[in-house]
Order: sequence, then structure tokens, then C-alpha cells
Amino acid sequence: MQEQPKSYSNQRKYIGKVQGVIFDLAGTLIDFGAMAPVEALQATFADHNIDLPEPLLRQLNTSDYQQQLKQLLDEGMVSEAWSNQYGRLPSHEDLENLQQQFIPHQIQSILNHADLVPGAIELAKQLLKQGIKLGINTDYSRSLVADLLPELHNKGVTTTSAVCANEVSRGRPYPHMSLKSAIELDVEHIHACVKVDDTESGIEEGLNAGMWTVAVAVSGNKIGKSLEDWQALDNTQQDTLRSAVTIQLYRTGAHYVIDTIKDLPACLTDIEQRLKRGEKP
Amino acid sequence: MQEQPKSYSNQRKYIGKVQGVIFDLAGTLIDFGAMAPVEALQATFADHNIDLPEPLLRQLNTSDYQQQLKQLLDEGMVSEAWSNQYGRLPSHEDLENLQQQFIPHQIQSILNHADLVPGAIELAKQLLKQGIKLGINTDYSRSLVADLLPELHNKGVTTTSAVCANEVSRGRPYPHMSLKSAIELDVEHIHACVKVDDTESGIEEGLNAGMWTVAVAVSGNKIGKSLEDWQALDNTQQDTLRSAVTIQLYRTGAHYVIDTIKDLPACLTDIEQRLKRGEKP
Amino acid sequence: MQEQPKSYSNQRKYIGKVQGVIFDLAGTLIDFGAMAPVEALQATFADHNIDLPEPLLRQLNTSDYQQQLKQLLDEGMVSEAWSNQYGRLPSHEDLENLQQQFIPHQIQSILNHADLVPGAIELAKQLLKQGIKLGINTDYSRSLVADLLPELHNKGVTTTSAVCANEVSRGRPYPHMSLKSAIELDVEHIHACVKVDDTESGIEEGLNAGMWTVAVAVSGNKIGKSLEDWQALDNTQQDTLRSAVTIQLYRTGAHYVIDTIKDLPACLTDIEQRLKRGEKP
Amino acid sequence: MQEQPKSYSNQRKYIGKVQGVIFDLAGTLIDFGAMAPVEALQATFADHNIDLPEPLLRQLNTSDYQQQLKQLLDEGMVSEAWSNQYGRLPSHEDLENLQQQFIPHQIQSILNHADLVPGAIELAKQLLKQGIKLGINTDYSRSLVADLLPELHNKGVTTTSAVCANEVSRGRPYPHMSLKSAIELDVEHIHACVKVDDTESGIEEGLNAGMWTVAVAVSGNKIGKSLEDWQALDNTQQDTLRSAVTIQLYRTGAHYVIDTIKDLPACLTDIEQRLKRGEKP
Amino acid sequence: MQEQPKSYSNQRKYIGKVQGVIFDLAGTLIDFGAMAPVEALQATFADHNIDLPEPLLRQLNTSDYQQQLKQLLDEGMVSEAWSNQYGRLPSHEDLENLQQQFIPHQIQSILNHADLVPGAIELAKQLLKQGIKLGINTDYSRSLVADLLPELHNKGVTTTSAVCANEVSRGRPYPHMSLKSAIELDVEHIHACVKVDDTESGIEEGLNAGMWTVAVAVSGNKIGKSLEDWQALDNTQQDTLRSAVTIQLYRTGAHYVIDTIKDLPACLTDIEQRLKRGEKP
Amino acid sequence: MQEQPKSYSNQRKYIGKVQGVIFDLAGTLIDFGAMAPVEALQATFADHNIDLPEPLLRQLNTSDYQQQLKQLLDEGMVSEAWSNQYGRLPSHEDLENLQQQFIPHQIQSILNHADLVPGAIELAKQLLKQGIKLGINTDYSRSLVADLLPELHNKGVTTTSAVCANEVSRGRPYPHMSLKSAIELDVEHIHACVKVDDTESGIEEGLNAGMWTVAVAVSGNKIGKSLEDWQALDNTQQDTLRSAVTIQLYRTGAHYVIDTIKDLPACLTDIEQRLKRGEKP
Repeated sequence: MQEQPKSYSNQRKYIGKVQGVIFDLAGTLIDFGAMAPVEALQATFADHNIDLPEPLLRQLNTSDYQQQLKQLLDEGMVSEAWSNQYGRLPSHEDLENLQQQFIPHQIQSILNHADLVPGAIELAKQLLKQGIKLGINTDYSRSLVADLLPELHNKGVTTTSAVCANEVSRGRPYPHMSLKSAIELDVEHIHACVKVDDTESGIEEGLNAGMWTVAVAVSGNKIGKSLEDWQALDNTQQDTLRSAVTIQLYRTGAHYVIDTIKDLPACLTDIEQRLKRGEKP
Repeated sequence: MQEQPKSYSNQRKYIGKVQGVIFDLAGTLIDFGAMAPVEALQATFADHNIDLPEPLLRQLNTSDYQQQLKQLLDEGMVSEAWSNQYGRLPSHEDLENLQQQFIPHQIQSILNHADLVPGAIELAKQLLKQGIKLGINTDYSRSLVADLLPELHNKGVTTTSAVCANEVSRGRPYPHMSLKSAIELDVEHIHACVKVDDTESGIEEGLNAGMWTVAVAVSGNKIGKSLEDWQALDNTQQDTLRSAVTIQLYRTGAHYVIDTIKDLPACLTDIEQRLKRGEKP
Repeated sequence: MQEQPKSYSNQRKYIGKVQGVIFDLAGTLIDFGAMAPVEALQATFADHNIDLPEPLLRQLNTSDYQQQLKQLLDEGMVSEAWSNQYGRLPSHEDLENLQQQFIPHQIQSILNHADLVPGAIELAKQLLKQGIKLGINTDYSRSLVADLLPELHNKGVTTTSAVCANEVSRGRPYPHMSLKSAIELDVEHIHACVKVDDTESGIEEGLNAGMWTVAVAVSGNKIGKSLEDWQALDNTQQDTLRSAVTIQLYRTGAHYVIDTIKDLPACLTDIEQRLKRGEKP
Repeated sequence: MQEQPKSYSNQRKYIGKVQGVIFDLAGTLIDFGAMAPVEALQATFADHNIDLPEPLLRQLNTSDYQQQLKQLLDEGMVSEAWSNQYGRLPSHEDLENLQQQFIPHQIQSILNHADLVPGAIELAKQLLKQGIKLGINTDYSRSLVADLLPELHNKGVTTTSAVCANEVSRGRPYPHMSLKSAIELDVEHIHACVKVDDTESGIEEGLNAGMWTVAVAVSGNKIGKSLEDWQALDNTQQDTLRSAVTIQLYRTGAHYVIDTIKDLPACLTDIEQRLKRGEKP
Repeated sequence: MQEQPKSYSNQRKYIGKVQGVIFDLAGTLIDFGAMAPVEALQATFADHNIDLPEPLLRQLNTSDYQQQLKQLLDEGMVSEAWSNQYGRLPSHEDLENLQQQFIPHQIQSILNHADLVPGAIELAKQLLKQGIKLGINTDYSRSLVADLLPELHNKGVTTTSAVCANEVSRGRPYPHMSLKSAIELDVEHIHACVKVDDTESGIEEGLNAGMWTVAVAVSGNKIGKSLEDWQALDNTQQDTLRSAVTIQLYRTGAHYVIDTIKDLPACLTDIEQRLKRGEKP
Repeated sequence: MQEQPKSYSNQRKYIGKVQGVIFDLAGTLIDFGAMAPVEALQATFADHNIDLPEPLLRQLNTSDYQQQLKQLLDEGMVSEAWSNQYGRLPSHEDLENLQQQFIPHQIQSILNHADLVPGAIELAKQLLKQGIKLGINTDYSRSLVADLLPELHNKGVTTTSAVCANEVSRGRPYPHMSLKSAIELDVEHIHACVKVDDTESGIEEGLNAGMWTVAVAVSGNKIGKSLEDWQALDNTQQDTLRSAVTIQLYRTGAHYVIDTIKDLPACLTDIEQRLKRGEKP
């Protein structure tokens, strides 16, 4: 009997090391609590003497600020306040003006909240030592990121790749940004990449790109508390918030849910063991 | 007992349809036998009265023509022929000249061998009908592809994405070209992509990108016979060649090995069933 | 391309801690060698001057004493002895009388053999410390168990749930008792339960309930030796018996086979690691 | 070399038929759109001249009516309306009165919406023919169900088991109700059970019990439209709603998401194939 | 970053056709009910005016006739009969004499029961047509098989390999006979082999060799009824026996349990589908 | 509902210890660099004043020396040298003479290169201590091995089984030799065997036998350097060679690729852990 040509399949698996980690910015790598987007929206409306309550802003289901402003104007409570203020409902022109007025506030609030999440510098050092490259991707536009990156670099966090949503045809949860990061990080295999994010759409982006994903619960937008506010809570309050958000993030399909990026090294170790055992993300 | 936040993981899987297929050009979608690269090299040396035997050219382990020309000049047989012709060993300047002389031959030979592999038009139609987008990626440079694409389009093969090796920082087997294709094909999930190729490095490129892969054995470079030459073989000769190459391609890790892209639809059906069963590429 | 609603499945897995362990009584938690059922049957027949050899009793393929008495009367050797004794074959009335006479013997023999298997108290303490609840289920009727439980409690083994075969519509190997235990132990997920038993039907009961299962070989009915008799054996004799029974119990599908419940903690550790790796029982 | 006792494990798997299906009531088996709970709450407050908008009621995150009434009184909009009506904020006594007043409205609204979801009768017939038993479990109390069951029976839907949340120590998403159903349906193996539900907590209940789960998207509470209202939508409107809810239900971990129970038979066929292939839920 | 040498594993799988089937003889391929071994033992003792009841013989836990004779003489009932007959317990010399006297009875009873199990001829034809080779292995010694094989051949059942327990250093459940068969059947891969047997030790032999295994329940030793006796049973009696034995054989780990080899083709089809899906036996 | 006979499958898995390791000889256990076969061929042709360059010999795709001699005579360079030497092309008679002349050279070169690979003695001791038996299989004929084995034994490497290609109907990559070894090593289960080899066909032989496989990269034929030559290389040169060969060997499907057998113990530990986790080779 002669060897049959189609008698054998070979399943090739990546069993090597993690080669790249891609961090979301606000709520993940910097800006504990993802305060900047909220602050920028509040400041924009404050110029019109309108107070936006934070819960309203945390529930916005888009990260595109133009859409956010439109959604807010459509909100009953906001349009009523606008009417009270100006004696008429907000017009399309009002929306366009707001979109212009928003930008300087955003620049300012990002600068106000550019602090690295605690542990980021040590983490960056350790990744560097392990030969793991560091990328970021974000809903912020390129110009905002361009200002931030040198500052991160000065603090010891050097990135090999930075991708902005406006540079790809589709944002989260589409995989486009993460795939672009993988190219720029120059990884051998997509399974060598880990996406870290605090939002559901960011985790889905990583999963759609075929990567390992790690969600951060405590520093992120879903809890939405600044470091000081978080630390001011007692243990029970922290546990209640952490549990609820952790469950939500696991439901997205995240491979791991941790408190903040400080806990990332243990995940990377576990990922490398899973890769070695032949597991795929 | 209260629900523990970390008691449940959720493994999210893509169970949808194939959304994009990425074809290599020579030996896969066009140019049965991958004759153009061989012909161009032969023509370049023929200008110097040097005959290059085809087996020598099929064994070159790079698809970068500049490297190929260098390797050939380093080859004992070739350098000897050069010496006989010119009375001296080939110099670095000779290599640079050859690289210039090669380009018009390449353009010409690609045009000579731009015929679609049999069945390509029907396949393109069917993919279109199923809503599957078609991409190509190739070691050819952009200018060569720019000439080819309208011709393919006229024949009924319209591509949504075309990526050339010189447009990414690393060529095959790195995943960069396939990842770029996935972005341009605008797929939801990397597991919705299928890479089709006739070479080992092309299959590895697809695997490294986390995609399904289909290798074509008969029309490709590894058998290296034009359609006419292939059809002139008897069954036993065809079987011997097909078996040997099929085994080699399976060893690369290809999920499927088929004769030519005519057999692709059955693979796509099987891939969608595997996705539905929760399998990952 | 819009996100397809049915493109993603999510496989939810319990990856938390063990929350409840359900022990069989005789041969598992108490009564090393499962002597009580044998002794009660022997005593019942001894009242009729009939000697029942232990091997005959160990082979009974039911744990329902009414069935057991009927099977014994149907046994050639026993019916012959009965005839010798009473000059006639046993009648249906004889069976009914025996069933009445059996009960006080059973009560007595259970009390005679209520000793905990060595290590049970330390194990109970450790489970308590880990927050794992302890249940029992048994073929004994409720009244017998009602007498036993306070005694176990006094010795330091407190149970959250106790289920008797006569309280569900079907006994072992049906899963009914274990499912009732899971409700009473108030576990979050059925995969957080472990059933421990010395008999094949008890292991199958746990498997049918979707639980992890641990079989005990040495203290159980299948070896059927009291602690003293077991300890009196030399190593080779112990090994021969242990091997044979271990193989039989593995064949039932038990996830683990151990000597006695003293060895349970290592199994629980391993189960929690398997749960964490995403394994299901 | 002698056979080692611990050299072999045996993994026992249920590869048989589906034996029991457990349906939630409102929004799954009866009451297309899960209208009754909403109607009862609205009617209760209407007696106090307070109008409750439906979206507010669909978002309540508990199915315990006592909790629901409390949550509503705590809601800013409702407490304000109450103040306007009665000149004071609602007191604890008011809540208790409302809980009393709610019950007759609930009885009435359940009767108003007792219609079976289209296809239920044919489905019940088919399950009967296949020897699959039918159970229900529900957040309704026993008395309400006691009235409903004979009516279902008269229409041709006979249930072997009916379990109410108030009959177990913990309701959804705890597995208690489903485990009790499994006992009453007298199944051989927990993997022979299928839980069908329209809510996230109902799907989780089934998963926590180790069962297969099927979510219904269109007839359920998450879309929350009566049959007439649903049919009055155009295709695009239906698609938008169906897609959003289907994605949410898949995220819960449901093995299948279908429109209504009419589509259940195909799931059962697939489940039996997966069982036969050795898959566990 | 350079490609890391140990970053990729390749899992090679046999995905081809079944190439060889290895049949046990008595109770599987020939001799419905495995009557010959029983008949030979009975005849041997009948020469000594001792009647051996069939159930006693079916329970012997070895297939080595020398061991069987020894076990029988050790049996209380038999040694008593021997004493009655000869006025003394059986001696070692008696055992040796019995072992001599057994052989002609065995030869005769094998000839008496050499009939193929119904469907064997059609099955052999079909295997031949599919290019699947046929082997046998057996506890019978070579000389007995030597007589049988030409007879089988004449009936249309031609074997490529025949292995006897006395030709390997260890019999069942050791894998030695099956491994020898695989060599003689000249298969490419051990996963291309299927072992068919009616006994537990025969199934374990196949599993230990890494092969697919199919157990036959109805024609085998565990039911132990001749074709006529089996056909004389009513449906309920057949179902009871078949169920009990089927469960026992599944417990051994057999991949399939069928009634007789007539049902083998469906298993082979299923095995080839499982191989194609990448499953290992 | 009665228990259905076909409701349960039992998947039996070997979870025990490694029981046997089968080593290839040249390039694996002895003869670092697999020098003997090359030297014997060179010596044979040197007698005819023909110099064979080593690379030519390393590329021969058969390990059968008769085929090797034939291939060499068919090689352009060699037949040309022969013509130069003898004034005519090599005849069939020349081939037959060469085959005779080869044998004493082979005997001599094997003796010249019988040195154990460093670490072999310690490894043999450790295997002995763990109760793991040691086998060899080889393309050398029995007579050559017969001379070698006592020498290995004297050095402390005692083998339980030695199988030569000429003793089975088909050599590598057919599984025949490894299956024969498994019988002679008397293992309980084929999954308890590990095949160690330096060639692709040897690894495939082990895989085809259903065994675990370990490839050695550095001491083997694919690098083809004697211990001295290897140690004379600098780190970069070693890395380049090791990387290329490691990748090639992984592609064959080897479960592990190590430098030399010195690294085997870590593989055996890992294999036993994988067996315990229920993995199959």
C-alpha cells in the first residue's frame, strides 16, 4: 500500500512567547477612571450653563465625541435645559458649534488626566526586559496622541506602535486597529499579541483580531472613579463595584479580568503557559 | 453564598460566515505553474548568453528578485558560465545591472502569464453571490499589480484589497500582508478570512495571521508546470507529482490542500461548518 | 458590512471554587468496610439459624434491603437452608416477616459501625475553613440518618444537607439524590459539586448529576474489610485488593480513585485547577 | 510488568437522547412579549393615578415583584409623581399596601396574557411523540401557576413538572429551580435536559444547572412587544431589534438563540448530534 | 525580530481511510454465542461424569484453557463432584491429564462451531472492495487456526494476518497481538486500524494498541447464546440481555457497541468521518 | 424511564507512566553527527578514486544503502567522475560490485563512530531507575547491531529490544519497527512509548505507531557535524544551524525537539503530565 497524499493533516500552532501588548489609553494605561472624556463633555456644556450629571455620560454607548454630543442634545433632560437657557430647542447649527467648542476642552482634559495608572512604569520596564513590544490604540485622534506620546516616553513608557480610530475605516469593536497594531509591532504570529482594555468594545476588538484579551475593571470607564475617589471607598463598596464590572467584562469574552494593569504580568505568564500547551486565544 | 465575580469565564467564538478570501497571484489565481518568475529570470540571463535550467530556479528559497539574482550569481554553475562569457567572476556592479535589466523582463513575463487559472471567473462570481470579498496579496511590487488589476476586473474578478510585499515592513512568512488585507476587506473577525496560496511561505503567512489556509498543489510553483505541460502528463505522472507536493503542503500546516482554486468552494463550506461547531483556525 | 447577530457564540464556564462535597455514608464517610449492611443481614438470618457467608452479601446488586432479602431467599443455598430449617420453601409471608425483623438489626448494626473513617474530622475542618459545604446522601432511610447526624455533628462533622434514597422518586444510579443535595447545599453551579462514594452506582449517580466524582477504594464495600482486617493484611495482599478495586472504580467513570477520604484534599486542589483551565466534569 | 491500577481513566459521557425540556412561562411558552408583568405594575400604579412608561418597567433588574415595587417607588420620576398626588413621599406603609394591591392585578394580567406563543401546541405534540418530557419553571408563585396549568393542559400542553421560584431557597440565576425540574422530570442525566428562556437570568440558571440552554429573542421580555405589535413592524425594524437582543442573549452563554420556541426542534436535533459526538453542554 | 526556532509546534494527524480490521474469532467472526470453548470444557468433564453448568463456564475470567481447567477444579461444586466420583480431591496429576484430554475436544468443538456469523461474507466482500485488509487474532493456538483459515477462505473470507495468543509474550488485554496484526496488515498508521471483539479483554487489547474498537454484544460470549437460542427469545428477552451486555461493553471503553459484525459498516463510515475531523481513537 | 443501553460512552485513556523509550542509533544514541553512513559511502567511492562531497550524501532521501549507491551512480557529477576514471558510464554490474564493496566499509565506519552521544550513560541509568525500558531501532542490519549491542551494554546502556529495518516488511516512515519494539518492550499501552530520532522519517515512524516522539536536532544527520566540529562553531553559527533544523523537525510533527538526548528527561516529565491530563500523543 502506497502512502496516500491526503492521509495526514498537520496542525501548526504558535507555542512561543508573547511578543506584543496593545493598551487602550484612557482608563487602561493612563487616566485612572477614564475621567477625561467625561470632563471634556461637562466643560463644553458648562459654557452653556448646563450641568451634565456624570452617570448620564458614563452610559453613552459610543466613543465618538460627535455622536456623543448629538446623543446628549437629543436627551430630554439636556434639550429641556437648553430650551430654558436659550428659549428654543438646540438646532443642527448648535450641534456643529458644540463640536467645535468641544475640541479645546478635550485637549485640556486629556492633559489634566495624562497621569499613568499606578504600576505602569514598572510594567513597561518589565515588558522591555522580556523583549515584549508595547503598542497603544485609542479612540482619541492622532493629534491628541501625538502630544501624549513624548510625555509617556519621558516617563519611561515607550511605544512601538500607536493607532488611532480615525486612521482605520472602522473603529471598535471591529478588529482593524488591533490588526494595524500587530503589523506595526512586527509580531510573528497574531497569537503572540495581547489586547488590554477597560471597555467592552475594546475587548471585542481584540477578540475579533484573534488576540488574547485582558480587561481592567477598577481603573476603567465602567466603574468610572478617579484614583482618589476609588481609594476613598471602603472595602465593601469597592467589592460591590468591582464584582459587578468584573462579571460584565468576563461576559464580553475577555480571557482575563484584572483590577488594573499592575496585575498584568501574571496574565502574561499564564498566556505563555497556555500557548505552550497548544491553546489558541 | 454570594455570586463570586471570578467564577465564570466566557469564551467568545466567531461562528459566522466566511467574509473574505485572500489569493496569492502567480500559481494560485493566475499563471498556472507560476511560470512568470522563472521566465523573467531566464530571459534576464539569456541576454548574457547564459542558460538557466528551470529546476535551479524552482529551488530558490526567496521570492525577492534582488535576492534571487544574487543567489544565482553565487551559484557555482552560474558564476562559471559568467566567467566563461566575460572572462571574470560577476562583480557587485554586475548584480546591480542585472537587477535593472530584470525589471522589464518581469513586466513582460507577468503579462505573458496573466491568464486566470481555469475556474477563477466562476469562483469569483460565486464568492460575490455569497457576499464574500476577494483580496489578493503578492510578492510582486505595486506597479506590476496596478497593471494587472484592471485586467482581472475586466475578466470578472474584482478585488476589494490588493497588498504587495513592498508595502509592509516584512514579507512572508510574516503575517503582515494578510493582516493588512483583513483590514482592507473590512472583515468583522480574523477567523472569517481564508488565505489561499501555492507556496509554503504563503500558507505560513496566513497561519501566522490566524486565518484559515488553503494550499493549491497542482497549479503552483512547487509542481511548476504550465497548464499545457500538466495536461500532457499521464495519470500516473500527475499522481506522483500531486502526491509529493500535497504532502509537502500539508506539512506546512495548511488546513486544506486542493488541486486548484476550482476546488475552493467545498473548503469554504467545510470551514463554515467548522466555525459553526466552534472550531478555530 | 454590519455585525451579524448570529456570528458569535459565547461559551460560559464555571471556573470558580469547589462549593460542596457530597459524601455517601457507609464505606465512605463512616463504617470502614461498609460492615453494617452485611452485619444486619447476617443477624436477621441468624435468628433463623441460617449462616450467610459474607461474599454472598457483598455481591448483592441492589442497596434496597427489601430487594436484598428477596434476592437472598431466592438464592439456592439460602432457600435450601430454609427448607432444612422449616421443612418448606420460604413463602411470601416469610419475606414480609423478614423485612420487619430486619429493621431493628439494621438500626443496631448502623450504630455499631458509626465510627468515622480515619481522617474524617480533619477533613471536615479543612472543608469548613475553605468555605466548602458538606452534604451526605445515602441508601439509608431518613429515620436512621436522623439518629446519626447529631452524632456526626458532635464529632465535628456538620452537614448542610442530608438526602435519603426514600426521599426521591429514584435512587442510584439516577442523579436525583445528588441534584437534591446540590439544591440544599445552595451551590452556584453544579460543576462546583463533588460526589464521593465507594460504590459504582454512587459514582454513576454523581456523574449523571454532572458533578465531579471521587471513588474510595480501600474503605468501601467492594473490598469490604473492616479497618482492623485491612490493617492486618500485608502489603502485597493490600496491593492486590486495592489494585483490583481501583481498576473497577475507574471503569465506572470516576474522575479520581483514592484509598479513603483522607486523600480527598489533593483531588479538590486538582479539580479547582481543572475548573480554572476551563475543564468540565 | 504488571497492570498498574491507576494507569487508566475512563471518561463517561452521556451520548443519548434529550429527555426533558424546561420552559420559562411568560415570554417563552406563553404571553408573547412578556406583557403580563408590565401590565400588572402599570395597573397597580394607575389606581394611584400614576402612569408608568413601559421602558422603565422593562429595565427592572429583578423579577421579584416586591423588589420591583420598591425599586419603582425609589425611582425619582415615580416618587415625584407620588408626592404630587399625595403631598408626601411614599412611606414604607405605602409600599406594603402596593404589594397587596398588586396581587389581584397580577392574577388578572396573567389571565389576560395566557395565550400560548404560536407553535407551542405543535411543539408539545412533537416532544410527546419523541418521548421528551416537558417541564416549566417560573418566577410566578405556585397559586398563579396552579390556575394556568389546567388551561395549558386543555390546549394540549401537558407538563410533567412545574417549579416556582418561591419553592426553592434561591431563584434565578441560581440553578435550584432547574435542578428541581430535572428531578421531577426523572431524567437519567443532567445533560439530557434543555432549558428554554427569554431572559438572561433564566439562561444562566440553566447553565448553572449544567444543562443545554436555548434563548428566545423575539417573543421575550427583552424585545417586549406583543405579537400584534411585533407583526406590525417592518422587516428592518424587526431585524434591528432581533439583532440587538440576539447578541445580548448569546453573550449570556446560551447555546442557541432562536426567534421563538417554534424554532426549537432544530436545536434539539443539533443537541443530540453534539451529545453523540461526545460534547457536554 | 528573528523567527524563533521553538515558536511553532505541528500536530500531525492521520486523517485517511481505515486500512485494516482485526476480528476476534469465536463470538465475533465465527461461532455465534462463542459456544465452542464452553462445549469443549463440558465434554472434557463429561468424560468424568461431571456435568458443568454453562453459567459457571461463562464467568471464567481467563481465556487460557489451562487456567480455566485449574479454576474449575478449584471450584467447590466441581471438586465435590470429583470427590464423589473418585473418592478423593483432584490432584495436580489430574489437572495435567485433563489438560491433555481437553485438546481433542477443543479441536472438535471448534469445527462444530466454525460457522460464520450471519453477514460475515458480505462484510468481507465489502471490506475487500474498499481496500480494507482483514486480520484475525485469537486465543486459539496456531494449529487450530491453521485448520480454520482455509475453510474461511473457501467461504469468501480471506485474511491477510492471523495472530494467536501463543505467538506473543503476553495475551489480552496486553496490546501485543493487535500490534503484531497491524504490522502484518501493513498499515500506514495505527489509527487506521479497527479491532472488533466480543470480550472485555479483547476490547482493551485494541485500546491498548491505540486502535479504534468495536464491541459485538449479541453474538458474543457475554450473552453466550447460539444463533438458534437467540432467535428463539422474544423481543423483551432479547432487549434485556442486549441492554445489560451493551452497557458492560461500553464501560470497557469500546468506541462502538453493535449487535453483530453485520452492523460494522456504519461504524467504519463514522470512524472515517471522525478521522477526517482530526479525532484520535 | 428505563436506562437506555446506548446512552453512555466511556472513553478510556492511558494516564500512567512512560514505560518504554525507543532510540534510533546513528545521530541519536551513538555517533554524534551521524558520520558513519557518510564515511562508509565516501570510503567505498574513494576506492575508485572518486571524491564524494559530504553535502551530496546528506541530501540522499533514503536510508537504504543499496538505493543510496544507485542514486549516487545516477548523479551527474558522480557518473561523470566514473566515466573519467573508467572510460565508460557505470553499469549495473558496477552497482552490484559497489554494494559488495560497501559492506566492510560500513562495518568499519560504524565501529569508528560507535561512541555514545554525551549524556547517554547517565540517561540510561535514570531510565533504569524509573523502570522505563530501553529499545533501539535502526536502518542498520541485524549483524551490524549484533556487534554493537554488547559494546553498548558494557558501557552501561542495556536494551530490552533491538529492531532492524530488514526484520520488518516495511521500513520508515512505516510504523512497523516501532510497533515491533513496543511488543518486545512489553508495554501495556502504545501511549506509554516514546520514539526518539534525528530524522524526519524516524519521527514519522513513531507518529504512525501512535507514540510520543522526540526529535534531536544537534547530534543528528540534518546538521551532520561531528561533536568536535559542532563544538568548534561559535554561538551564532550553532544558533543558525540549530534553528533551521529545529523548525524542520517540528514540521514533521515531533512532539518535542531537543538538542541531544541529554535533554530527554524534561520531555519525559512533560509527557507524563500530559498523559495524566488525559492527552493522547
